This record gives sequence, structure tokens and C-alpha cells, in this order.
Amino acid sequence: MKNFLHLPQLTDAELHGLLERARAVQREPVSDALKGRVLGLVFLNPSLRTLSSFQAGMAQLGGSSFVITPGQGTWALETEDGVVMDGAAAEHVREAVPVLGQYADILGVRCFAGGKDLAQDLTEPVLSAFARHATKPLINMESAVDHPCQALADWKTLDDLDIPARGGRFTLSWAWHPKALPLAVPTAALTMAARRGMDVTVLRPDGYSLPSEVMNLARAEAARSGGSVRETADRRDGLDGAHVLYAKSWQAPSCYGASEREAVLRAPLREWCVAEDWFQPAHKDAVFMHCLPVRRNVKVKDEVLDGPRSRVIQQAGNRLHAQKAVLLSLLGVR
Amino acid sequence: MKNFLHLPQLTDAELHGLLERARAVQREPVSDALKGRVLGLVFLNPSLRTLSSFQAGMAQLGGSSFVITPGQGTWALETEDGVVMDGAAAEHVREAVPVLGQYADILGVRCFAGGKDLAQDLTEPVLSAFARHATKPLINMESAVDHPCQALADWKTLDDLDIPARGGRFTLSWAWHPKALPLAVPTAALTMAARRGMDVTVLRPDGYSLPSEVMNLARAEAARSGGSVRETADRRDGLDGAHVLYAKSWQAPSCYGASEREAVLRAPLREWCVAEDWFQPAHKDAVFMHCLPVRRNVKVKDEVLDGPRSRVIQQAGNRLHAQKAVLLSLLGVR
Amino acid sequence: MKNFLHLPQLTDAELHGLLERARAVQREPVSDALKGRVLGLVFLNPSLRTLSSFQAGMAQLGGSSFVITPGQGTWALETEDGVVMDGAAAEHVREAVPVLGQYADILGVRCFAGGKDLAQDLTEPVLSAFARHATKPLINMESAVDHPCQALADWKTLDDLDIPARGGRFTLSWAWHPKALPLAVPTAALTMAARRGMDVTVLRPDGYSLPSEVMNLARAEAARSGGSVRETADRRDGLDGAHVLYAKSWQAPSCYGASEREAVLRAPLREWCVAEDWFQPAHKDAVFMHCLPVRRNVKVKDEVLDGPRSRVIQQAGNRLHAQKAVLLSLLGVR
Repeated sequence: MKNFLHLPQLTDAELHGLLERARAVQREPVSDALKGRVLGLVFLNPSLRTLSSFQAGMAQLGGSSFVITPGQGTWALETEDGVVMDGAAAEHVREAVPVLGQYADILGVRCFAGGKDLAQDLTEPVLSAFARHATKPLINMESAVDHPCQALADWKTLDDLDIPARGGRFTLSWAWHPKALPLAVPTAALTMAARRGMDVTVLRPDGYSLPSEVMNLARAEAARSGGSVRETADRRDGLDGAHVLYAKSWQAPSCYGASEREAVLRAPLREWCVAEDWFQPAHKDAVFMHCLPVRRNVKVKDEVLDGPRSRVIQQAGNRLHAQKAVLLSLLGVR
Repeated sequence: MKNFLHLPQLTDAELHGLLERARAVQREPVSDALKGRVLGLVFLNPSLRTLSSFQAGMAQLGGSSFVITPGQGTWALETEDGVVMDGAAAEHVREAVPVLGQYADILGVRCFAGGKDLAQDLTEPVLSAFARHATKPLINMESAVDHPCQALADWKTLDDLDIPARGGRFTLSWAWHPKALPLAVPTAALTMAARRGMDVTVLRPDGYSLPSEVMNLARAEAARSGGSVRETADRRDGLDGAHVLYAKSWQAPSCYGASEREAVLRAPLREWCVAEDWFQPAHKDAVFMHCLPVRRNVKVKDEVLDGPRSRVIQQAGNRLHAQKAVLLSLLGVR
Repeated sequence: MKNFLHLPQLTDAELHGLLERARAVQREPVSDALKGRVLGLVFLNPSLRTLSSFQAGMAQLGGSSFVITPGQGTWALETEDGVVMDGAAAEHVREAVPVLGQYADILGVRCFAGGKDLAQDLTEPVLSAFARHATKPLINMESAVDHPCQALADWKTLDDLDIPARGGRFTLSWAWHPKALPLAVPTAALTMAARRGMDVTVLRPDGYSLPSEVMNLARAEAARSGGSVRETADRRDGLDGAHVLYAKSWQAPSCYGASEREAVLRAPLREWCVAEDWFQPAHKDAVFMHCLPVRRNVKVKDEVLDGPRSRVIQQAGNRLHAQKAVLLSLLGVR
């Protein structure tokens, strides 16, 4: 494993190795395994969990990290090739990435979707530019259409909870949100659950189907593992027998980049706020998952988040363990 | 000692233990006592001394730290319960605090007063929300109406200077400032000096009495230790025999949240800028103290800050030692 | 060596000691030499290389660092003496610098030119204020008219490339840029090459002569080492036999602080964008150097940056090694 960019790029052996290692560092969190090693974190977008879990994790393993926030204390970065750079960006990733690779042993980058052109975002323009010029292992700390650190942590959470892989029912449900949000987490959760071999349902209002590229990727992952992927707009059908309700908002792909048109489509959907009664058709021990941050009483009601079904804190805790496993593996520590 | 939130919550044994430990780490600043431990610092407000002294202190003890600045590189945080979160805040402390508690061994939070509603600020809404949801020890790095790290450092400074506890005269003097400032430092200094057993005078212009809640807290602290608390608007009376002049600006509680009305009240008070001649009625070796940052020639004249009475640099230096003592105690290191 | 502020202040022995040490830490990057030591980094201006290379370097030597960004998460700082501080600045360097000196073992400061008054900028008002009040060793991380960390790294790069000192031809060429830029890097590169004993040519359009103070400083450095300094506006003459083309933009000193007038002077000069054909009169193995960040196809064409002449990544890599040498020397580690 040279980089950690997308879960579907990993072999089963790599994936299971990471999960096993995540459990091991959870049992023994502190070591000198990465003494003298430096992690460079590039945040093109804001973060709480990602920044703190990577910095804490690196420190607990005896290493250290630095944080670069282009456009806020650092120059804005250009990612496109051949450009005449007389605009806002003062530095190109063609320089910035190999330069940082001389200071750090490993790099992480957070680069959300541009949000204007779906076809372009699906090509991961910024992450790809970083990967193309990286001279050290690179970690995707959330990109235009993926969030593999979250996905790996979520997989571990499902394992921790003894939720079945084959035969387990995982429902990714759309939820209302005041803004048009990116596709990274829904894509990551969907493909993760499919790859884990679960029977996955995407529950979403009409008009909110995920892009066919995303659905096809998930179906391919399901095919590798014996899982399945389907979608529905019917809540009762969508949650029938579900072991997991994983909530997330995302913008309608048909209105991608057209935020006013999207707002009109979204306006009547405020009742897509997960409540306890959503779980009636689900498995009796069904859990609620969300990647955080979550807007309370907008995407999900207090009664669910503060009730016994919620696993959101545990999910975030597993970010630390999963990422430490990724760091150790990419840095070749056995 | 589970948290370090307010000095009045500490027993005499805890307080004196911290002061002794602060002297010990000053003598031996570097160790491996906190190897593998992580401090999470949440700054809802700006900082120079607090950020640098906590990060340096943790590093000198062999540990490490990370910095979260919600609203600047991180999501804005909601602290109120039951809210429908469709505004600016994307994350609730009910999630953020336990999540950070999974990554860090100890947390610090800086959360200034809202500055609109005095009764509400006196309840410490943000600090209380953090404390309610904290799963790890919590340090108050300045809150709506307290700054216990500063108070502990100031106590140590008074000890270092051999200023008497019983019988020592401590004058907290109001000073002019271009803005309406919070009550945190005056409250912290006042209650600290009272708890130390000193005879404390609050010297302030008419209309600038501290809230009765603050004065009562200070009187209760004085009662525990044999000190006393009084207030006056007369400079000669207020500084008579004083060993310490501790200057600070604060807004008039009667105009709390009404900044235009407060500015009218404050306008004629620019002569409340501490000068050398203020010390005429004081003890001949009287010292000048201030928590920093200080606006020169606005709150205090160069002649005082650059003269032999000033102890402001030493006070700031003691922040480091005091906070290292707090870290070691909260993390159970003997 | 007490501080690291300007290369011309160093003796030959100090300079060569730093270069030798830089090579040593490049061979053995990781150690415990600075265990328990803390570096305080004050950024009054943005940074990518400087922040990350100092933080990484300190960590690789077993120490740690903290970052202060006044005006962004920290109070704005006043540097002038005797001022009535009722404006934006809440803290004076007379307090801030000695306070930070109590927390850190060594300080670095980045303080770009004010850009309004050339005579004032040439006195280095901010750096001088920091130096005046520093109680610990101080590193210049780029100031109004110098960038000695870059200069030392560039010297090492020239050594690494076996470019002759005596007899080596170094051309500092002006390049177009959309903004009026400071004089720090051209001054640093010019005086470094002169001090190294090279024959230095400043190639610039009419009106872009560097200030006589800068040229005189470079000539004095050349006199110490047997080098030479001249200037020309003729590209063929300026690059004749050059071993190095070092590109940088700077504002016309005659229009200093008059950005509109400077823009008029600069407007017709867009063809000052370094291209491969610029190298025709140069030495056949001539290299291209630039301090980064660089605007592609504005200051230099892709064909040069992506071609075999470019040494910009190596220059940035040497920042790390050079700065680690400075840290070790200033902290008295043998």
C-alpha cells in the first residue's frame, strides 16, 4: 500500500490488515513506533476530528506533525497544469507537494469538492494533483467524492458492534440540511458497506439518487464481496430489517452547482430528519450512525442522538485507531 | 482534583499542592512525565500567552498538544441544548467534547463572555457545557467570568515576591481601555487575593462596581482565609499602604451589553491610566501587576511598565510553571 | 553566534560551520539533540515552507515548536516605542517578546516589509524591535529586506551543485509579477552570492535598480570574499556565461509605496518571464533557481520549471537542513 486514497483500491488483505492493526493500536495506544517521523497535514477545508485525531495519533506513536492551511496563513494553491498564474494562487502543487515531501515522511490532504461541475469533481482534480506530485505516501483526509478514513473507522465500528457483514442490512439515508452538501461521505459509507458484503439500501427522496458513477462503484464493490446495493424512496421499505441507519445529507446530483434550484428541490423535505419512529421497521437492535459534525434537530432528533441507538461518538473514536493503522502501514512499520 | 475550572472550587491542600508543584517544575522544567499524553486545546477566542505556554509546557513534560479554533479552520460550535441547529453552528458540544476526549488525555477551553447578558455570563454557559460533556479532565483557559490559570500564576508571583498573605494589601484598580472588556481577570485576581488572605481593595470609578455576585464570591473566599474585601472610588484611600497595584479594565456592569451607553460612561475616565505618582500613598516597595496584553499609555504609562515596580513579565512566566503543575496534577502524575 | 538575523553579520567561520553542519544533519536527519527544547515561531506574514520546515526540523531533532500568528488567533502587535496604544494593536513587543522568551528556548519571527517607506523598511523596524527585546536567540524567518534562511539554503544548494565560488557567475534576474513585491529575497540572494565570492550580475529593466544601500551591502560582501557585483538591463550581457539564473520579482525602489505608479512602470514588462531561450548566452549547464512560491508562466515558464535546469525543489529541501544547522548552533549543541 503506497497511498491511502480510496478504499476500493485496497486488496482484501490490505483492508483486513488495517482493521486488525487498528484494533491493536486501540489496545496499546502509545508507542515509539514513529519516533522521528513527521506527518504534514494540508487542510484546504476546515476540520475538527481529522486535524485532532491525526495530530494526536501521530504524537501517541512517538512522531509529530505540522499543519498547513493554504489561503489562511499560507498561499492559495493552484492545481491545474499549464495555467498562467496571475490570479489568487501564488503557488502550484507541482512545487508545494514535492517541497512538503522533503520535510515530511508522509502527507495528508483535505480537499473538498469544487461543487460546481459534477463530472469534474468525480475525477478528484485536487486529490489527483497531489497524488501525481507526491514523493511520499499520501493520505486522503476527505476529498471531492470520498472519505476513506471515515469509511475505515466506520467499518471498524461495525465490526466492534458485531453487526453481520454477509446478511447485515445497512441503510444509508438522506437527511435534510440547510446547505447543499458534497457527496464524499455518502459515497464512502455506501462503498464501504458494499465492500464489507452487506445488503445496502440507499434511502433518499425522489431526485436525490446518487450519481450512476457512485452507484456503479458501490455495485462493483458489492460484487467483490457478495453484498448488494439497491435504492428506494420509501422509508418503511428502506429500513425494513436494517441493522444500521447511517444518515447523511447530500445535494441532488441533478442540481449540482445550481444551489438555488437545489434549494427549491430541498425545501419541502425538512421532515427527512431522523426520529426514533423511523426505526419501527428496522431490526430491534438497529443502531444510528453519522460521521459528524451533525446538526441536531435538523438531520436527526435529540431523541436519537442522545438515545441508546447512537454510535456517533464511537465512530469518531475509531477515526483515531483507523488512522494510526494507516500511518503505521504507509510508513512501513511492522 | 478532577477539573481545573475555578480557584474557589479547590481545597487549601489542592491549592498549596499546585503552588509547590509549580515551584518544582520551575526548578526542573524538562522531564518525560507526560510522555505519550496529549492535550487538546480549544480556542473559541484569541490567545498568545495561553496557547504558547500550554504548548511549550506540555512539550517540556514530554507530551504533545493540538489546537482547535472553532469558526476559524473548524466548525462553529453550539452549546445550548434542544436547539434546532439550522444556523451558523455545524456541531454541538455534546458531540465535539466527548469526541475530543477520545483523542486527548486532557482538554483546555478558552471561551470568553458573550458580553450581552450579565446574568447569563455569570452562569458560565460555554464552560459549563464543556464541563458537562467532558469525559477527560478539563482546564479553564479563561471563561466568561474567570481565569484561574492567571490567578494561580499570580498567586505564585506574589509568593515569589515575598508579599505577605495575611496583612498584605492588594489593590485591584480599574483602568481605562478603548473597549468594554469582560470581567474574567478582575474576578480571578480579586478572588485569588482574597483567598490568599490579603486585604483587598477594589479601586474603581463610580458606576464601575463589580457585580454583587463577584464581590460576594470574593468575600466568601476572604472569609475562608482571614482576608478582607472592600471597594472605593478614592485613589489615595484605595492605594494606602498597598503592596500590589493590579490594574485591569472592565465594563460597567450597569451597562453590560449596552456598549454605546457604556462608552459614554467611560469617556471622561481616560485619566485612569496608571502612572508612577499613583504609588505615592502605597508601600514603598509596591509592585505593579497586570495579566497582559496591556495597552501602553492607555491603561498604564511606560514609566511604570519600564520601571522597577513592574512584575508583568514575571507574572506571564509563572503561567508556564502554574499550568504545568495543573497538567501534572490532573493527569495523576506524582 | 547569538542570533541569526543577517548573513553579513556572520564571520566566515560561522558561515562555513553552519554549511558543514547542514550537510551533517542532511546525512543524519533524526536525533535527540534538541530533546526538551521549544522553538516559538511568530508569523506576522503567511508561510508554507518556513512554517513546515521549522516545525519538521525541530521535531526531527527531538524538540518541539509552537506557532503564533498575531492578528489571526492572536492580538496584533505594536513595535514602536512611546506610542499611545488606543488603536488595533493590543500588545507591545516589549512585553510579547520577553514573555515568549520565557516559554521558548529560541524564537523565530517572520515580518515582511511595511512597503510604504523604503528608508524605514531598510532599518528593519519590526525585526529590530524583536531583537531589542529578545531574551533568547532569535531567527529571522524573512524580514523587510532580508531572508537569511533562504540565503543559507541557497548557498548550500550552490555547494551541492559544485558551482564555483570564485569565478562562478550568478545572475539575479528581475521577473514580472502581478504585484509589487518586497526586496527581501533579492537582497538575500544578491548578498549571499557576493559573499560566496561569485561574480554577480543584477539583470533588471530600467527603473528597477536595487536601492544603493542594498548594492553597497552586496559590494562590501564581495570585497570580503573576492567576488564582484554589477548590474545591467541587457539580457544577453546579463546572462553571458552565467552558471546560475536566480529569478525574483521586486518593486521599483523609485515607486516604493506608490503601487499605482509602480503598476504603470511594470505594465510593459510582462515579457520578463524566464524562458528556456534566456539561457542561450549562459553556461551550458546553467541552472535555474527561485525561492518559491513561484507563479508559473508569469515569472517563469513551465518549460524551465519542469525542465532539467530547475533546482527549485532542491533549494526548498535545503531550507530544512540549513535551518536545523542554525537551530543547533544557536542552542549551543555541539
